[in-house]
Amino acid sequence: MKKFINNVDDILTESLSGFAAAHSDIVSLNLEPHFFTRREKAENKVAIISGGGSGHEPLHSGYIGYGMLDAACPGHVFTSPSPDQMLAAAEAVHAGKGVLFIVKNYAGDVMNFEMAAEMLPFENATVLTSDDVAVENSTYTTGRRGVAGTVIVEKVVGSLAETGADLAACKALGDKVNSRTASMGVALTSCTVPAAGRPTFDIDETELEMGVGIHGEPGRRREKMRNADAIVADLVAAILEDLKPTQGSEVLLLINGFAATPLMELYLLYNSAAKLLQAHGLVISRSLVGNYTTALDMAGASITVTLLDDEIRQHWDSPVHTAALRWQC
Amino acid sequence: MKKFINNVDDILTESLSGFAAAHSDIVSLNLEPHFFTRREKAENKVAIISGGGSGHEPLHSGYIGYGMLDAACPGHVFTSPSPDQMLAAAEAVHAGKGVLFIVKNYAGDVMNFEMAAEMLPFENATVLTSDDVAVENSTYTTGRRGVAGTVIVEKVVGSLAETGADLAACKALGDKVNSRTASMGVALTSCTVPAAGRPTFDIDETELEMGVGIHGEPGRRREKMRNADAIVADLVAAILEDLKPTQGSEVLLLINGFAATPLMELYLLYNSAAKLLQAHGLVISRSLVGNYTTALDMAGASITVTLLDDEIRQHWDSPVHTAALRWQC
Repeated sequence: MKKFINNVDDILTESLSGFAAAHSDIVSLNLEPHFFTRREKAENKVAIISGGGSGHEPLHSGYIGYGMLDAACPGHVFTSPSPDQMLAAAEAVHAGKGVLFIVKNYAGDVMNFEMAAEMLPFENATVLTSDDVAVENSTYTTGRRGVAGTVIVEKVVGSLAETGADLAACKALGDKVNSRTASMGVALTSCTVPAAGRPTFDIDETELEMGVGIHGEPGRRREKMRNADAIVADLVAAILEDLKPTQGSEVLLLINGFAATPLMELYLLYNSAAKLLQAHGLVISRSLVGNYTTALDMAGASITVTLLDDEIRQHWDSPVHTAALRWQC
Repeated sequence: MKKFINNVDDILTESLSGFAAAHSDIVSLNLEPHFFTRREKAENKVAIISGGGSGHEPLHSGYIGYGMLDAACPGHVFTSPSPDQMLAAAEAVHAGKGVLFIVKNYAGDVMNFEMAAEMLPFENATVLTSDDVAVENSTYTTGRRGVAGTVIVEKVVGSLAETGADLAACKALGDKVNSRTASMGVALTSCTVPAAGRPTFDIDETELEMGVGIHGEPGRRREKMRNADAIVADLVAAILEDLKPTQGSEVLLLINGFAATPLMELYLLYNSAAKLLQAHGLVISRSLVGNYTTALDMAGASITVTLLDDEIRQHWDSPVHTAALRWQC
């Protein structure tokens, strides 16, 4: 294992401290327990909080700021944050209009966020993301996994919350975006969890893992390596089978890198996916290409499609000012 | 070699087409010869044009747009674009105030941009970037290599050009930023050029290449793997030896990933570098962390420090709207 680290035990604190220092104009870091908030507390809005295991950066801390999250709770690598982090974060950012948790569907995250929700002295609700169409249940999951589509949920709900919308409206929009979003990924290499020191799974130089999870969980099947168009065709077919879009539907297309795949290849995947979606009669009106939900040092990528409507498109386009997504401000 | 590609010969066109489609609100792609321009031609300004071999994305195409480049010419992977690309790009974006080429110091790029400059029927000048302090001459270079500091030159000069400043002023500011910018990188793995199909160099699981170039060129020395703080200490020492900043100097700190290094590690490097710079009495007032000048699929990172002054800081902060850098608009 070759990584830029000092001691395995210090990775999280050192990396979070670096993030906080590099983006001190946007975020503040609390160390005991770990959570990030916006530097300037927002008032008169639902507090939007997310969190999850580290190793998926920029998810979630990179999405804190105007138009998106109020706080994020980073757990240890691939490990859920604990309820005390969530409670402390909620205490810090609650602004009188309730708290909305956005939680990726993994057993540990669901359990801990539920525990926090029960103990929270404020009105609260939870949006559970489950956009990964690869498998129904998985290593750490009952039901579908929440993956890169979570970024879209956080952006859209974060925008609505800035308008002063109430908790029920934010929850409803989050659930709607999740239900209109489908993702699937493919791995060319495993990731290596620092504390383990060796790859999570073995994969041959001639193989790929179709439908891989963002922790290296197994997908649908191990396959022989194929060309990009053939891989994209399978991912898009699985996504469209789930979304069942009507002809002429307007979509957002996200090509997400898992970390080690160069932008050059991600744009090649975009080219391939866009042609396929257009051939299916879909209109791609919004796009995002880059490393937005990663899996430590895995080589691989996922495709996410969201069916847009006027409301979702408007909240996607609205101003956002975070470390990893920024436009119109 | 496992990559998301169809045929090696089509990688460039497919990737450029994907980039153009994903960012059609910002750029337009010309295919014969290959060059990108802003979607909306800018008027009454010096036309800022860059280019170089592909494989360094988002450099340079990701920096086309308001506040930065007017056009970029992508060559084949790690290969200079040709003069006809530069001439056609200049013809497309020249707006009556001359053309400024921003060129990384590699022999092929220098030769081809010089040839284009001689044939260009417009007033023109060139800023040659040479921020890499690792080695004086190198595989493809006489003199120091131009690396991630090029992004800072492009941002700052691009901002000045938007104000209507003349060619001499843009050239002078570019040279100034370059002279106040120093970088050095380190590789943990080689990159693999698709047409070669095998790693550019061999490197052991216990080694690193200190001072590596962005094409995998040799650096200062091959070393045993060390912890992040020790690696950063060497990079920062080389940079400060070059810049010789006075106590209290204000700097921009860029931690640049070469592609395969996760953001979590880049922020850990930021944390380490920031502490060192502060211990040297420097004030880090601007920061950038991410994959801004890559080396195909190499695992590794570089550190860049720019000595700021009021003029450079102002043009760094000004609005920019490109695929890879966007703020204030």
